[in-house]
Amino acid sequence: MKAMASAPAKMILFGEHSVVYGEPAIAGAVNKRAYVEIKKSYTGKSTLKSYDLNFEVELNTKNKTYNLIKGKPGIIRYILEAFHRVHDHTPITMTLSSEIPIGSGLGSSAAVTVATLAALYRYHNIRFNKKSLAHDAHMVEQAVQGVASPLDTLVSTYGGLVYLSRSKTFEPFKINFNAPFVVGYTTKHGNTGKMVKDVRSLKNRNSKVINPVITSMGHLTNYGKQAILKQDYKKIGELMNINHGFLDVLGVNTVELSRMVYTARECGAIGSKITGAGGGGSIIALCPGKVKEVAEGIAKEDNVLKVNFTKRGVSSKVRM
Amino acid sequence: MKAMASAPAKMILFGEHSVVYGEPAIAGAVNKRAYVEIKKSYTGKSTLKSYDLNFEVELNTKNKTYNLIKGKPGIIRYILEAFHRVHDHTPITMTLSSEIPIGSGLGSSAAVTVATLAALYRYHNIRFNKKSLAHDAHMVEQAVQGVASPLDTLVSTYGGLVYLSRSKTFEPFKINFNAPFVVGYTTKHGNTGKMVKDVRSLKNRNSKVINPVITSMGHLTNYGKQAILKQDYKKIGELMNINHGFLDVLGVNTVELSRMVYTARECGAIGSKITGAGGGGSIIALCPGKVKEVAEGIAKEDNVLKVNFTKRGVSSKVRM
Repeated sequence: MKAMASAPAKMILFGEHSVVYGEPAIAGAVNKRAYVEIKKSYTGKSTLKSYDLNFEVELNTKNKTYNLIKGKPGIIRYILEAFHRVHDHTPITMTLSSEIPIGSGLGSSAAVTVATLAALYRYHNIRFNKKSLAHDAHMVEQAVQGVASPLDTLVSTYGGLVYLSRSKTFEPFKINFNAPFVVGYTTKHGNTGKMVKDVRSLKNRNSKVINPVITSMGHLTNYGKQAILKQDYKKIGELMNINHGFLDVLGVNTVELSRMVYTARECGAIGSKITGAGGGGSIIALCPGKVKEVAEGIAKEDNVLKVNFTKRGVSSKVRM
Repeated sequence: MKAMASAPAKMILFGEHSVVYGEPAIAGAVNKRAYVEIKKSYTGKSTLKSYDLNFEVELNTKNKTYNLIKGKPGIIRYILEAFHRVHDHTPITMTLSSEIPIGSGLGSSAAVTVATLAALYRYHNIRFNKKSLAHDAHMVEQAVQGVASPLDTLVSTYGGLVYLSRSKTFEPFKINFNAPFVVGYTTKHGNTGKMVKDVRSLKNRNSKVINPVITSMGHLTNYGKQAILKQDYKKIGELMNINHGFLDVLGVNTVELSRMVYTARECGAIGSKITGAGGGGSIIALCPGKVKEVAEGIAKEDNVLKVNFTKRGVSSKVRM
């Protein structure tokens, strides 16, 4: 018997950082996924292999440790935490594959966590629904990271594009928003915790200058919501560009992110910005009719993915 | 008899664009100058030569036209306008040399205008003082450009670092502010008029988002004034970085400017930003102890000048 699950990556379209101060944000699931398979092991040992992430470990699920066989298992703590909470510690073989670059601000840890939990529930025939899964996955992320936003695990579970309001309600967009995006990313990872802390100090040191910026970013997200509802790509692009400027104001831009953002615009993107906490990680570019040009432009120096928002959230099944 | 004059370039440290909406700005004269010499011509013709700008023309001062002998006389309209207002149209030979890159947002036209007028007044033995010279130079700029800020010609005439207040008074800083800057510039010139117009439309289309930005930029300039008075380089650098972000918000950043700004920071600048209207032109980087590193870093792809603010304004004399 084999339990299988997959869950999508996410992109933040508007509102990273300002969301920390209670402003709204817009994020959604994208068509790049993490895939998990779990089956019984007959060797007496639990192993986890990922061909595409190029690592292999022996899992000690009981005490949340592992023995490295090869590679760098960057995402392992989320998997061990999930096993610790759900698994009975009988030997299993797990394989992980991921279309999502790890540590790139696209919610790879949430996608892996959601998929791992869903596969484990299937493997043990434990009842679950999206609400309980999103909650459990958030608990895993919180246990590993200390603090975590529920946004990533929620989007990865439910799929679709959501508006996170000032009152912290999640409102799914009911429309199909199929605009073509290019993601650019470097191998330099951002440190979300550090970025959030740095923004807070900058804001405290320069309150009269930065406080109005946070409020403006909230207004921008609301303009963005209207533009999405109207499918007004040009307006969405303009707002992405302004949002990028705000992230530059907050000091989370880097030489690489900036290069990718402006290269995208030079190559025909109608909007481009950092996505996620910055300081490394990814940029997104909205480029209807120009996906090829933008992807080729960014790929000259950095890495690219072509993505769309998708309604598809977590998916899981059992094969006998 | 030979009349000689020189006048300095300027850099805007804080407040470009927001100054258009009544917010304060800080700008100053720098130690790169335009030099003009005027003497009698015995050929019956008036000529203007610039070895370093690599052009030569025959001037028809009466009707503000010229015959090109060689090169591209980018700055010629200001010179013809100055001659038209002051000269008696007797044949002269003028030479122009400039340490200021033309069209780079460093006030090359103001420096050339101020130096040309001062040399002409000397040549004709016309009495003038800084106040009348700054006024006349502003009139020349306005005649050529349609609209012009009095800031450039004022700074180029008086020298020094000035705070332009909300009520449009110019307050010179009484301290010596000798911080080392590196200027980076490309051959791509910005179009100030177009940039100002583009910012206005962006602001009109997104008023709730952009209006508070303009106000914040004013607060930032005032923070900058305090930091200058305290000679707090670190704070000035931080504010330059934030100011650059605001200029990115306003849409006047480009792939080249962004590359230079972030390269400067990577190489050790404690602050870097676009200076002037953007869309091309220059960036400035504050880099105490790192001038060499920053200059070398930027020079890999773009052009650099090492500059300081200076108290020295226009200077002129006659040699018999």
